[in-house]
Amino acid sequence: MALKRSPLAPLRFAALPPVAGVSLASRACGIKYKNRTDLCLMAFAPGTSVAGVLTKSKTASAPVEWCRAALPRGRARAVVVNAGNANAFTGKRGETSVERVVREAAARLGCRAGEVFVASTGVIGEPLPDKRVLKGLDRLCDRLSPDGWKAAAQAIMTTDTFPKGATRKARIGRTEVTLNGIAKGSGMIAPDMATMLAFVASDAKIPAAVLQRLLVDANARSFNCITVDGDTSTSDTLLLAATGQARHPRVAADLSLGTPLLAEFRAALGDLLTDLAQQVARDGEGASKFVTIRISGAASAAAARRIGLAVGNSPLVKTAIAGADANWGRIIMAVGKSGERADRDRLAIRIGGVEVAAQGERVPDYDEGPVAKHMKGREIEIEVDVGVGRGKATIWTCDLTHDYISINADYRS
Amino acid sequence: MALKRSPLAPLRFAALPPVAGVSLASRACGIKYKNRTDLCLMAFAPGTSVAGVLTKSKTASAPVEWCRAALPRGRARAVVVNAGNANAFTGKRGETSVERVVREAAARLGCRAGEVFVASTGVIGEPLPDKRVLKGLDRLCDRLSPDGWKAAAQAIMTTDTFPKGATRKARIGRTEVTLNGIAKGSGMIAPDMATMLAFVASDAKIPAAVLQRLLVDANARSFNCITVDGDTSTSDTLLLAATGQARHPRVAADLSLGTPLLAEFRAALGDLLTDLAQQVARDGEGASKFVTIRISGAASAAAARRIGLAVGNSPLVKTAIAGADANWGRIIMAVGKSGERADRDRLAIRIGGVEVAAQGERVPDYDEGPVAKHMKGREIEIEVDVGVGRGKATIWTCDLTHDYISINADYRS
Repeated sequence: MALKRSPLAPLRFAALPPVAGVSLASRACGIKYKNRTDLCLMAFAPGTSVAGVLTKSKTASAPVEWCRAALPRGRARAVVVNAGNANAFTGKRGETSVERVVREAAARLGCRAGEVFVASTGVIGEPLPDKRVLKGLDRLCDRLSPDGWKAAAQAIMTTDTFPKGATRKARIGRTEVTLNGIAKGSGMIAPDMATMLAFVASDAKIPAAVLQRLLVDANARSFNCITVDGDTSTSDTLLLAATGQARHPRVAADLSLGTPLLAEFRAALGDLLTDLAQQVARDGEGASKFVTIRISGAASAAAARRIGLAVGNSPLVKTAIAGADANWGRIIMAVGKSGERADRDRLAIRIGGVEVAAQGERVPDYDEGPVAKHMKGREIEIEVDVGVGRGKATIWTCDLTHDYISINADYRS
Repeated sequence: MALKRSPLAPLRFAALPPVAGVSLASRACGIKYKNRTDLCLMAFAPGTSVAGVLTKSKTASAPVEWCRAALPRGRARAVVVNAGNANAFTGKRGETSVERVVREAAARLGCRAGEVFVASTGVIGEPLPDKRVLKGLDRLCDRLSPDGWKAAAQAIMTTDTFPKGATRKARIGRTEVTLNGIAKGSGMIAPDMATMLAFVASDAKIPAAVLQRLLVDANARSFNCITVDGDTSTSDTLLLAATGQARHPRVAADLSLGTPLLAEFRAALGDLLTDLAQQVARDGEGASKFVTIRISGAASAAAARRIGLAVGNSPLVKTAIAGADANWGRIIMAVGKSGERADRDRLAIRIGGVEVAAQGERVPDYDEGPVAKHMKGREIEIEVDVGVGRGKATIWTCDLTHDYISINADYRS
């Protein structure tokens, strides 16, 4: 099935500049798809540190388990990513496939196997045709280029309708560093890890321990705040590599995240991840509207996030949005089912900035006109104050449409 | 929008016999719908005990809050139910409406207000037109009859496509007692309470304390094991009344649930609630297939239930079933996201009785033919053994189809 480009897609793929110490290559090797690229290699200069966040699924894929074991060493020289097959639930064979791929890449790049990271996305439960990956790798190593970002973003797509990329600059001391990121994902999108795959690289020189704290912190406010269908993938992987090519003041391994030295980098990373995460939500399977849900007045930020996700994951809320129906009663329902504290008699709702409910009931002389008009647009804003505290969170999602059903009732066939 | 009768509906409404001490009446009073009944009164003989399970929603409706306050007294003389308006999120006005209705019913039936229970189902956030309910009640009291069960089941419907009823007999000592139940619900169906409304009555003479324990126990294995869309209503209410008209050996208030005296009654109650719960899942909005999910090998029964619900609530699993796609990889995904312990390398799956995966991977020489044939049917059976313990649970649900989207994108308009 050919998928139409999401109506919520950005106008164009961002112009990603080279990042010193990063080179990429992609190619078609026929893992599942025909006539498109499906394998991508990112190579990093010696001395690159790495951080990562992986799916919490109890049935994680073989590549995820490999990354989980390799991350504590904090060193990366390459990431090998394939689309079309997730190499998940493939037993011992799946582990053997990972080992073969990793060993081959390490031999070609002259590094240790533990410095090679892998990610696979696509169908679950089918053995990975690793011979095709090995043959593909063979040629990729000769074609590495600093300009391969867009091609890489395309090679890792599955049901995505557009490639996803973002870039930011930040100063560490007086030195400007670059951050580039690509991501893929549109189905099985839920928090804990929201996207299936995202890879970010910078020329900054940051020890792995600091990098990991920066990534966990930024991830909590970006990928962990989007949801498409509440389903969590077996393969979710977010990696952040720092090649150390930039000449900026030294970042100590025990530096606190609050340090002024990293303030710009930290902000840029959060901003970049949020950009990528929103692109994923904008490519939610069958999405016709992009939805921003702002929760305030919750008992804590974590409570606000859970309430926002209950609203963002509710099929009844999402279908109402698809139907441009300002059915705020379903928002009340979803707030109630979150299990978090909310004061029914102080609850307030705004849709598109218009007050719909306050003090636990519909506002007097409520005029649905402007709200109905807002609901017909592409960008929907929902604000809920639950009236018990000062906790806030923002969640991004999309609507649930007939196209989601069509895509998912037919995906594998 | 006129809804087609679910293809999964039972052939006919069960023949519910009279229950001594119970009389019913229904009528149209124009709360929202035109040309159909929307108000129902169940009246009980003096001395009737009552038990109940209510929604855990933090934004529960005014009728639910009334029932929560009235239940500890354990006495019921009437239940007043309206369809078309949930009287939820209606502030002080909602509470006043409940008080008016309850006082009117109590005056007409010559009982205390605390012996009148209420339930409302329909749109959230619109004030209840209580004058119409009061006027309707006026005439209902003169028309009470022991034969009104089917009419009552029809009067409480909203998006339901068929009325739901069930009946069972059981002996307490040598005396036969009857249990009748009606239910409604098809959207906002999720555990903790699965259905929006269900009312069960028996002529047994059982103290409220015992009745409550029996109900909680049976509810855990019936209504709390179905899910349509994971959404929890603000109005979910399950009431069980025992009129005490049957002449059987005395049931002491501190009797244990394991007593032989109540064994048949307990089994019949569980069976009746499961029947009603399955009818609700069979009327899941847009359902085209009824799905039974059996989980075994979990760390505990509660863990098995959570895994089963993760599978039963997954939009990706449900859309695959709608598409008759034996996409068992999505079942693996859902097991993984439940957060419960599962041994990836011992996991086994059967679909329609056919082994698909064992020991953590697809079975050798897997033939999709018989599984694909099973998936084309109306009744889908999924079995998962997660390989870590002896916990078991069964969950019932339905598929997620285009009709679900159509119904819910347009419901309110």
